[in-house]
Amino acid sequence: MYRALRLLARSRPLVRAPAAALASAPGLGGAAVPSFWPPNAARMASQNSFRIEYDTFGELKVPNDKYYGAQTVRSTMNFKIGGVTERMPTPVIKAFGILKRAAAEVNQDYGLDPKIANAIMKAADEVAEGKLNDHFPLVVWQTGSGTQTNMNVNEVISNRAIEMLGGELGSKIPVHPNDHVNKSQSSNDTFPTAMHIAAAIEVHEVLLPGLQKLHDALDAKSKEFAQIIKIGRTHTQDAVPLTLGQEFSGYVQQVKYAMTRIKAAMPRIYELAAGGTAVGTGLNTRIGFAEKVAAKVAALTGLPFVTAPNKFEALAAHDALVELSGAMNTTACSLMKIANDIRFLGSGPRSGLGELILPENEPGSSIMPGKVNPTQCEAMTMVAAQVMGNHVAVTVGGSNGHFELNVFKPMMIKNVLHSARLLGDASVSFTENCVVGIQANTERINKLMNESLMLVTALNPHIGKCLRNNNIILNAKLKS
Amino acid sequence: MYRALRLLARSRPLVRAPAAALASAPGLGGAAVPSFWPPNAARMASQNSFRIEYDTFGELKVPNDKYYGAQTVRSTMNFKIGGVTERMPTPVIKAFGILKRAAAEVNQDYGLDPKIANAIMKAADEVAEGKLNDHFPLVVWQTGSGTQTNMNVNEVISNRAIEMLGGELGSKIPVHPNDHVNKSQSSNDTFPTAMHIAAAIEVHEVLLPGLQKLHDALDAKSKEFAQIIKIGRTHTQDAVPLTLGQEFSGYVQQVKYAMTRIKAAMPRIYELAAGGTAVGTGLNTRIGFAEKVAAKVAALTGLPFVTAPNKFEALAAHDALVELSGAMNTTACSLMKIANDIRFLGSGPRSGLGELILPENEPGSSIMPGKVNPTQCEAMTMVAAQVMGNHVAVTVGGSNGHFELNVFKPMMIKNVLHSARLLGDASVSFTENCVVGIQANTERINKLMNESLMLVTALNPHIGKCLRNNNIILNAKLKS
Amino acid sequence: MYRALRLLARSRPLVRAPAAALASAPGLGGAAVPSFWPPNAARMASQNSFRIEYDTFGELKVPNDKYYGAQTVRSTMNFKIGGVTERMPTPVIKAFGILKRAAAEVNQDYGLDPKIANAIMKAADEVAEGKLNDHFPLVVWQTGSGTQTNMNVNEVISNRAIEMLGGELGSKIPVHPNDHVNKSQSSNDTFPTAMHIAAAIEVHEVLLPGLQKLHDALDAKSKEFAQIIKIGRTHTQDAVPLTLGQEFSGYVQQVKYAMTRIKAAMPRIYELAAGGTAVGTGLNTRIGFAEKVAAKVAALTGLPFVTAPNKFEALAAHDALVELSGAMNTTACSLMKIANDIRFLGSGPRSGLGELILPENEPGSSIMPGKVNPTQCEAMTMVAAQVMGNHVAVTVGGSNGHFELNVFKPMMIKNVLHSARLLGDASVSFTENCVVGIQANTERINKLMNESLMLVTALNPHIGKCLRNNNIILNAKLKS
Amino acid sequence: MYRALRLLARSRPLVRAPAAALASAPGLGGAAVPSFWPPNAARMASQNSFRIEYDTFGELKVPNDKYYGAQTVRSTMNFKIGGVTERMPTPVIKAFGILKRAAAEVNQDYGLDPKIANAIMKAADEVAEGKLNDHFPLVVWQTGSGTQTNMNVNEVISNRAIEMLGGELGSKIPVHPNDHVNKSQSSNDTFPTAMHIAAAIEVHEVLLPGLQKLHDALDAKSKEFAQIIKIGRTHTQDAVPLTLGQEFSGYVQQVKYAMTRIKAAMPRIYELAAGGTAVGTGLNTRIGFAEKVAAKVAALTGLPFVTAPNKFEALAAHDALVELSGAMNTTACSLMKIANDIRFLGSGPRSGLGELILPENEPGSSIMPGKVNPTQCEAMTMVAAQVMGNHVAVTVGGSNGHFELNVFKPMMIKNVLHSARLLGDASVSFTENCVVGIQANTERINKLMNESLMLVTALNPHIGKCLRNNNIILNAKLKS
Repeated sequence: MYRALRLLARSRPLVRAPAAALASAPGLGGAAVPSFWPPNAARMASQNSFRIEYDTFGELKVPNDKYYGAQTVRSTMNFKIGGVTERMPTPVIKAFGILKRAAAEVNQDYGLDPKIANAIMKAADEVAEGKLNDHFPLVVWQTGSGTQTNMNVNEVISNRAIEMLGGELGSKIPVHPNDHVNKSQSSNDTFPTAMHIAAAIEVHEVLLPGLQKLHDALDAKSKEFAQIIKIGRTHTQDAVPLTLGQEFSGYVQQVKYAMTRIKAAMPRIYELAAGGTAVGTGLNTRIGFAEKVAAKVAALTGLPFVTAPNKFEALAAHDALVELSGAMNTTACSLMKIANDIRFLGSGPRSGLGELILPENEPGSSIMPGKVNPTQCEAMTMVAAQVMGNHVAVTVGGSNGHFELNVFKPMMIKNVLHSARLLGDASVSFTENCVVGIQANTERINKLMNESLMLVTALNPHIGKCLRNNNIILNAKLKS
Repeated sequence: MYRALRLLARSRPLVRAPAAALASAPGLGGAAVPSFWPPNAARMASQNSFRIEYDTFGELKVPNDKYYGAQTVRSTMNFKIGGVTERMPTPVIKAFGILKRAAAEVNQDYGLDPKIANAIMKAADEVAEGKLNDHFPLVVWQTGSGTQTNMNVNEVISNRAIEMLGGELGSKIPVHPNDHVNKSQSSNDTFPTAMHIAAAIEVHEVLLPGLQKLHDALDAKSKEFAQIIKIGRTHTQDAVPLTLGQEFSGYVQQVKYAMTRIKAAMPRIYELAAGGTAVGTGLNTRIGFAEKVAAKVAALTGLPFVTAPNKFEALAAHDALVELSGAMNTTACSLMKIANDIRFLGSGPRSGLGELILPENEPGSSIMPGKVNPTQCEAMTMVAAQVMGNHVAVTVGGSNGHFELNVFKPMMIKNVLHSARLLGDASVSFTENCVVGIQANTERINKLMNESLMLVTALNPHIGKCLRNNNIILNAKLKS
Repeated sequence: MYRALRLLARSRPLVRAPAAALASAPGLGGAAVPSFWPPNAARMASQNSFRIEYDTFGELKVPNDKYYGAQTVRSTMNFKIGGVTERMPTPVIKAFGILKRAAAEVNQDYGLDPKIANAIMKAADEVAEGKLNDHFPLVVWQTGSGTQTNMNVNEVISNRAIEMLGGELGSKIPVHPNDHVNKSQSSNDTFPTAMHIAAAIEVHEVLLPGLQKLHDALDAKSKEFAQIIKIGRTHTQDAVPLTLGQEFSGYVQQVKYAMTRIKAAMPRIYELAAGGTAVGTGLNTRIGFAEKVAAKVAALTGLPFVTAPNKFEALAAHDALVELSGAMNTTACSLMKIANDIRFLGSGPRSGLGELILPENEPGSSIMPGKVNPTQCEAMTMVAAQVMGNHVAVTVGGSNGHFELNVFKPMMIKNVLHSARLLGDASVSFTENCVVGIQANTERINKLMNESLMLVTALNPHIGKCLRNNNIILNAKLKS
Repeated sequence: MYRALRLLARSRPLVRAPAAALASAPGLGGAAVPSFWPPNAARMASQNSFRIEYDTFGELKVPNDKYYGAQTVRSTMNFKIGGVTERMPTPVIKAFGILKRAAAEVNQDYGLDPKIANAIMKAADEVAEGKLNDHFPLVVWQTGSGTQTNMNVNEVISNRAIEMLGGELGSKIPVHPNDHVNKSQSSNDTFPTAMHIAAAIEVHEVLLPGLQKLHDALDAKSKEFAQIIKIGRTHTQDAVPLTLGQEFSGYVQQVKYAMTRIKAAMPRIYELAAGGTAVGTGLNTRIGFAEKVAAKVAALTGLPFVTAPNKFEALAAHDALVELSGAMNTTACSLMKIANDIRFLGSGPRSGLGELILPENEPGSSIMPGKVNPTQCEAMTMVAAQVMGNHVAVTVGGSNGHFELNVFKPMMIKNVLHSARLLGDASVSFTENCVVGIQANTERINKLMNESLMLVTALNPHIGKCLRNNNIILNAKLKS
C-alpha cells in the first residue's frame, strides 16, 4: 500500500543533495545553487532575521528560514489556541503534498508552464515526504474550512519552488501560490481531499497493519491454547468449560471483523472532493480536472481513489469521516473487551484469576517485587476510551455543517487521524509487549476447573455427567 | 420535599368524589353535576364517538372521552414518531399542572375572574396529580419548543374547567385555553419552566432519596466490615492490605459526593423562565408576574424556585439541564465503578475472587445450580451506560440552540428525567436487593491475604515486616 | 422483506377464533375448549385473582390472566426500575417468537414430540405477531444477559401451548418452559439471537423504508429545483452560485449513503448466536442445531440470517450492534445537516434567508399569525441528537463485556431499536409533512443572488465575468 | 492565583545563571561547577553519547544529555504509541515539580537530610518552572497509573539534584529517586495529586481568565447595544422584538454561569490524594504527612488544596475529574451556542441575516473580496466539539476503575487539561479577534425589524399595537 508513492520516491530521488541535485535537475538551470537548504546550519543562525511580506491587511514579518508566507503568519497571530501539540497533523500536510503534486501534473496537462509545474511537483514531493514539516506551524483551531492550511501549503510550495528556480522567497515569481500552486483548486475542495488522502493512508499504513499484527498474534495464541480446557465465566461467575483457545478465538474474530468494518468504510473515503472548487460546481476548473486529479492521487498512493460522485455532499458534509470514526469506535470496543479480559485473566498472582501469565516488561512495584502490572492492557484501554471520545467530537462536528460547507474540517480530521494512529500503534505495542508473550498457567487453570466441575457434579449429577462427557469428547477431539 | 404540595393536597382535597364535591365547591354552583367524570364506565363505551373541533386549518375529530382539543389532535397526525413509549414524560405533565395552577393564582391577583381562575386551578391540580395522564398523547418528537404540549395542557385544563363549570367541551367558553389558561404565558417560557420544575421534583423525589438510601447501606456495610483485613488490588493485581470497610468507605464517599454534585447543580435548575413569554422580554405580561409565579411554584412544591435573572438565557439555552445531566453522568461513573467492584469481588464461587457473598435473588442457572449472578450489578451498570448516553444527547441538544429559542427542549428534558429516574430507581433496587445483603466471605478473604502476604514477606523481608506491623497496628486499632 | 413470515401468516392463520380454530387444530383434540382466551372480557373481571406458582425460592402469586410464570413475577419484584416505558421493546419479544418457533421446528426434526412442538410453534407465532405483548412486563433493567426475558418467553409460550392443549396453566405439563420451549438453548445464546433478529427486522421494516422514502422525496425536489440558480453559502457567508437542485442533490447523496452504510453493517447482524448455548461451545445442543435454526429464522423472516462463525464472539461481544449503531449515528449526522439547512433556508418570512417556503402544518404563533415554524426539522434534529446519545450508550455497553458473556445486552438492543425506529419514523414524518411540500421562493432566491453577484462583479470584474458566464452556461444547459 | 508560587519564584530565583548561582548555593559547595547545564551547546554536541544505567531487567542506554534514567528509557521502548504530540502534558510535569518540592519540605521536617532535601527542592522547582520539559519524553499511553511518569520525575529530580551536589548522573548517590525523591509517596498517590494540581492551575491560569475576558467583552457589547431594537427569532423564524443588548445579555449570563459551574467543581479538585500511598491506607507514610503536603502545595500555589478526606476514593476513582470535565462540557455548549449565533447574525453580507458586522481578520476569499468569514466562530465551535468528545473519553475512563486503583489516569488528565486549555485559549482568541470588534449593522437591523413589524401589524392589529407600544415603551425607557 502507498507503494506507488514509495516506488516513485525511489526512482526519482526526492531527497537531493543540495547543489548537485539541483544542478542536474532538468529545467532548473545548472547555476541555480540554492542559498537556502533544509536542514542547514546557516539557516539556524539566521533564525532571528525576517523578510517582509504583505497581505491585503498590511505588512508582516516572515522568518527568513521559513518557506511559508504572509497568510500563514497572519493565522499564527489570530489563532493562539493550544500550542505546538495542536498543529495540523503531519498526515494532512503530507496528503496536501500528494494532492498538490497531482494537481500540478494535471494542470501541466492543461497547459501550465512545465517549468513551473515541475518545480511545484518537486516541492510538493518534499512536503509529501515530511521534509518540510517545520514549515507548517498552524494549529487545527483555525478557520473551519482549513483555508489557512491550504494557503500555508501553497506558500511553502511556492517559495520552495521559487527557491529551486533561483527566485526570491516571497516574491511569488515565478511560482505564484494562488495562480499556480492552487490552480483550479479552492480550499473548499483541497482540504477535504487532503482529509480523505490522509485518512486513507493512515488507515493503510498504521491502523490496518497494527490490527493485522494483533490478529495474527491472537490467532497463534488461540491455536497454541487449543488443548487447554478451562472454566468459562458468564456474569463474571463460574460457568461451563471451554478451551482457552476457544476463548482467544473470540478475540481473533473481533479483530478480524474490526478490519472488515474499517475496510467497509473505505469506499466513501476513497472519494475525493477535488474539482468541486468553492461550492461544488467546479467553477474555475476545467472539465475532467476532478477525474484526472483523483487518478493521479490513486497512482501516487496506490490506493483506489476516485472523484466523488457528488461534490456538493463532499464539501458540505463529512459523513465519510464520521463513518470511518464509527468503525474505529467499534474497534475500540473490541479492543477494550480483549484487553480487559486479558488483564483480569492475568490478575493475581495469588489473589486474582491467575489463568494467564503476562510478560513482565518493566520493574514491578518496589513494595511487592512479584507484581507484574498489565500495563499494555492499560495503555490499550486508555486508547480505546480516547477513540470513543474522539468519535463523539467527530460526530458533533459532522452534524454541524451548514449549506455548502462544513466548517469543522480540521477538528474532524485531527480526531480521525488521532484514533487511527493510536489504535494502530497500541495494537502493535500490545501485540509485541503483551500478546506474543502470554503464557497459560495450566496448573492454575486445571485447579480452578476441577474445583468448579466438582461443584457442579455434586449439585447436578446429570449435568456433571454431561460436562464430563463433554470434556472427554473435547479431550478426545483435542488428542486426536 | 415536595411537601408543600402534598400538604396542600391534604388540606384542599384535590381528588373529589364527583357530584358531592362539586356541589359543595364554592363558586361552581350546586347544580353543576358533571356529565363527564374520569374514570367513568359510560365514557369507556363512548370511546368511538368524536366531537368536531376546529383549528385554523380546518375541522378535526376529537375523541369524546378526551379533554384535549384540536391542536393536540393535529400534532398526533403530524408527528407519528416512536409510539406510546415516546410520550412526553409524565413529570413534565405534572409540572405543567403546577405551573398552570400557579399562573392562575397570579392571574387572579391581576384581575382574572375568580370563577375562571378557580376552575383552572382545580383542573390544573388534577393534571399535577397525574389524574389526567391519559389526556396527554403527544410524543416528545414534536416541535422543539414543546408548544404542542403546552397547548395540550391548555386544552385539557380548559375543557376540564369548562366541564366543572357545566359548559360544553371544546366550546372554549367560559374557560379559553389561550386567553385564560395560557394567560401571560407563551410556550416559550412555560415549557422551560415546566422542564425545570419536573427536573427538580424528580431529583428530589427519586434521585436524591435513591442515592441517600444507597449511601446509607454502603456506609453501614463499611462499618460492618471495619474489622476485616483483606488484600488490596491495584492494576487488578495483588497489592498491600486494607480493610474491607476501608474499601467500602471509598464507595460511600463516591455516593456522598454524587449527592453533593447534584445539589450543586440545582441553583440553576431552580431558576424559572416564566414571565419571559415569547423571546424573554416579557411582552404581554405584567410587571411582577415572573416573580409571583416563581414564588407560587416554590410554595406549591416546597422547593426554592426563583425567577430566572436573565430570561433571554432561560429560553435560548438550557445549560442548566446540561449541567444537571453532567452531575448525573459523574454519578453514573461512580455507580458503575461500585457495581463493577462488587460483582468482581463477588465473582466465583470457585474460580473468581470470591471475597463477597452476594444475595441470591432469583433461581441460578439450571445447568449450574450454585450460580448466583450479580444481576443487580448488571442492571446498575446498564443504567450507568444509559445515563452516559443520555448525557451526550442532552449535550448535543444543549449546544444547538439558535437565537432566542433552543428547540431541543422536549428531547433534553426527556433524557434528563430518564437519567434521574433510572439512577434513583436503580439505586434503590441495588440497595435493597444487593447491598444490604452482602456478606464478607472472611475465610476466603483471609486465605487470599495470607497467601499474598507470605509472598511479599518472602520476596521483600523489609516490606513484609512493615506490612505485618501494619496489620498488627490495624488489628490493634480495630480491636481497641 | 419479512415477507416469508407474512406469507406464512396468511397461509396458516395465526389469529384463530377461539373454540373453532382449536377444535380443528390437528393433534389438539376437539374437546379442548380453552377457558382462557385473549382478549376476553371474562378475564378482565378476574384481574384480581391469582394462581400460585413456585420457583426455587418459594411461592409466588401469578395473575390468572397472564401466561407468564414464577420467574417473570420474581423479576418484576427485583427490578423496579423505570416503569412501563422501560419494558423490553416489543421487537425483541417478536423476535423471540420467531426464534422459539424456529427452535421448535428444529427440535421436532431432532425428535421432540410433534404435538408439543406444534403447540410451541403456534404459541410462538402468537408471540411473533405481537398478540401476547401484554404478557411481557419485564423492564430492560434486569439481568444483563436478558435471561429473565428469555424465561418470560419460555413461560408464556409454555402456558399458552399448555392452554391450547387443554392443560393447566403453570403446571408445566405437557409443555415445559425449560425442557421443551428452551430445548437446546440457553439465555446466553437466545437473547443475542433475538437481538439480531429484532435489529434486522426493524432496519428492514422501519429504518430503510423511511430513509428510502426521504431519499426519493429529496431526489424529486432536486430534479424539480434543477433550474433554479441561487447564491451559495460557505462559512454561512455569501459565496458563488449553484442551483437549488444541486444543493438538494447533496442531501440526496447523504441519504443514499446512509442506506449504503446501514446495509454495510448488516452482514454481521445476520449472524445468529443460536447454538452456542451457555458459553459458546454448544454444550447440550446437537450438532447442526445452530445452522438449522439460522436457516429456519431466515425462512421465517425472508432475511439472510446465518449461524455465527464464532459463537464465543457472538455471546461475549456485541460489536455488531455497536457497528450498526455507528451507521445510524452517521445517518443522524446526515439528517441533522439536512434538517438544519432546510430550516435555515426556510427562515423568515422577512428577517431570515427565506429561500424555501416550508409547508404550514399547524397553527402558527397566536401572536404572529404568519409564522410557520419548521417543526418537522425540529423533530428530526431532536431525533438525531437522541441517536447520537443512544450510540454512546451502546458503545459503553459494547466495550464492557467480560469473559464469555457481555451483560449489557438488554440496554444495547433497546438503544439500537430506539435509534432505528426514531430515524425511520422521523424520516417518514419529515418527508410527508415537510419535504414533499417544500416550495422554492424564486423571487427571493433571485433577489439575493443578483444582489450578491452585483457585489462580486463590482469588486472583482474578472470573477464577475466568469460567474456571469458560468450562469449563462448553467442557464443554457438548464434550458437545453 | 498561583500567586504564592510566583512570589516564591521572585524571592528565591529559580532560574540561576549556571556557575555563579550554584557556587553561591548554600550547602552545594562552591567548587561544584556543573559540567551539564541546560541549555548548553556542548550538550547538544554530545547528543549521541550515552551512559549505561540498569533496572532489574538489565542495562539500558540513557542519553548523556538527559536527566532521566533507566525506567524512563524502558518506558519509551515499551510504549511507542502516538509520537511526540502524545507526551504527558507539561502542566502535569509542572504539578509534579510542585508536589515533589512540597514532599521534600515535609520529609525534611520528618528528618530527611537537609542537604538532600534542599537539592530536591531546587531540582523540583526547575521542573515546576518548565525548565526541564525536554527530560520528560514519556507518552500518555503508558501504565494507567502514571507510574512511569512518576519515576521519570523521580529520576530527573534525583539526577538534577545529584548534579547540583557534584555527583554522578545515574549513580543515585547522594539523592536516590525512590528513597529520597519519592519518599513517603507512591505513584498511586502522587499521580492523582499531580492531576489535581495540574487541573486546578490550568483552570485558574487559563480557563477562568479566558472566560472572564470573554464575559467582560460580551458584557460591554451588551451595554453598547442596549439601545438597538431588533427583531427576535424563535424556531429561526421572525418573532417579536428585543434589543440587541438583551440578546447579548443572554450570552453574558451563559459565560457567567460557565464560570460559576467550573468553580462549583473545584472543591473536589482541591482534594489531594498525597499520603494515601499504594492503596489509600497510607502504608509507609508518617501520620500527618498527607495534611502537611497538602498545606505546602496550597502555599506554593496559592490555591486552597486540602488533603482528601477519603484516600481510597481518591486513588480508585476520579469522579472529580469527570465532574470538572462535565462543567467544561456545559461551557462548551454555551460557547457553541454563542459562536453559532454570532456567525449567523453576521452572515451575509447580502444573502444572510447581516445584523452584525464581524471584524475582518484575514484576507477574504480571492474570488469574493468582500467575504469576511467568521473564522473565530469556527475555531470556537470546533473547540466546543472537541471538549464534548474529550468529556466522553474522561467519562469512559472514569467509569472503568477497578478495586483500589483507577488505571485511566494519564488519559483522563490529558483530556481535562486539553479541554481547559482549548476553552481558555479559544475564549481569548474569540474575544480579541471577534467579540471586541463586533459592530451592529443598525441600518439592516432597522430594516428587518420594520418589515417584520409591518407584517405583524397587518395581520394582527391588536398585537401590532401592543408591539408598537412595547417599542415605544422600550424606546422611552432607552432614551430616559
